[in-house]
Amino acid sequence: MRILGIDPGSRVTGYGVIDSDGRSSRHVASGCIRLGAGELPPRLGRIFTEVGDLVAEYAPQALAVEKVFMAKNAASALVLGHARGAAMTACVQAGLEVFEYAPRAVKLAVVGSGAADKAQVQHMMRMLLGLTRAPAADAADALAVALCHAHTHSTRSAVSRVAR
Amino acid sequence: MRILGIDPGSRVTGYGVIDSDGRSSRHVASGCIRLGAGELPPRLGRIFTEVGDLVAEYAPQALAVEKVFMAKNAASALVLGHARGAAMTACVQAGLEVFEYAPRAVKLAVVGSGAADKAQVQHMMRMLLGLTRAPAADAADALAVALCHAHTHSTRSAVSRVAR
Repeated sequence: MRILGIDPGSRVTGYGVIDSDGRSSRHVASGCIRLGAGELPPRLGRIFTEVGDLVAEYAPQALAVEKVFMAKNAASALVLGHARGAAMTACVQAGLEVFEYAPRAVKLAVVGSGAADKAQVQHMMRMLLGLTRAPAADAADALAVALCHAHTHSTRSAVSRVAR
Repeated sequence: MRILGIDPGSRVTGYGVIDSDGRSSRHVASGCIRLGAGELPPRLGRIFTEVGDLVAEYAPQALAVEKVFMAKNAASALVLGHARGAAMTACVQAGLEVFEYAPRAVKLAVVGSGAADKAQVQHMMRMLLGLTRAPAADAADALAVALCHAHTHSTRSAVSRVAR
């Protein structure tokens, strides 16, 4: 199963692509789309285009993103919503199913603690995916939510196999 | 000049298309995209597709949307942001320039009072555009922001002509 993880942001959007059979996972690609500080509409256009390009290039079967419960304030929530909307729309347009995971669930899945900090997530991504160096923070977060989906999805499949 | 006005929402997105030479305006089309209450990602996909279809059908030169300063709370701001992001992305992808106007400026432009209520906006849209009946609230808001752009843009052009 190939999974695209996205950590959407209006200034930097992280992405990570992994292949996984549920037990072991392989790093395919990761990085950051840096959007600068210009007007919001062209930045949304770039998120949509570049996420669309990632989907076309890597042909993932699913999109995994972090669920957002609370942003610092309504204004930053609104801007974050635009960025998430552009990224999710690009994936929905390409026929991908979208899976959302609570930030705590992601950290618990990849670090073993729901309260892990960014540096721990970066370190664990390097370890779990056998990378030569730690990915940038936004790319690490994107890889983490993709891995969380790989584990969760596999557990779900196992449960439904057992249930049959 | 043909202008598309959008009043984005995650459950109902209003739209309005007008032709304007700055002094007089003509109603081309308006209505509501009703998105129901299912999962958010497919609703974003529908906003993107249907706004894209409107752009393809009516070939507007500009998108006008209301600026949002504060939503009731961070959670509703986040969801509204997704809807706005999907709608704006569809227009940016089609090469439209995006213009944002404060809600007060829109009401002032079309009703003559920054504190006008929804019913007044609906009534004035019927009057100004010579419609046989008042448009639905979301469609009226979309037409209002399109008209606001028509007036503002025309004033700006007049100012720059004078300045030359």
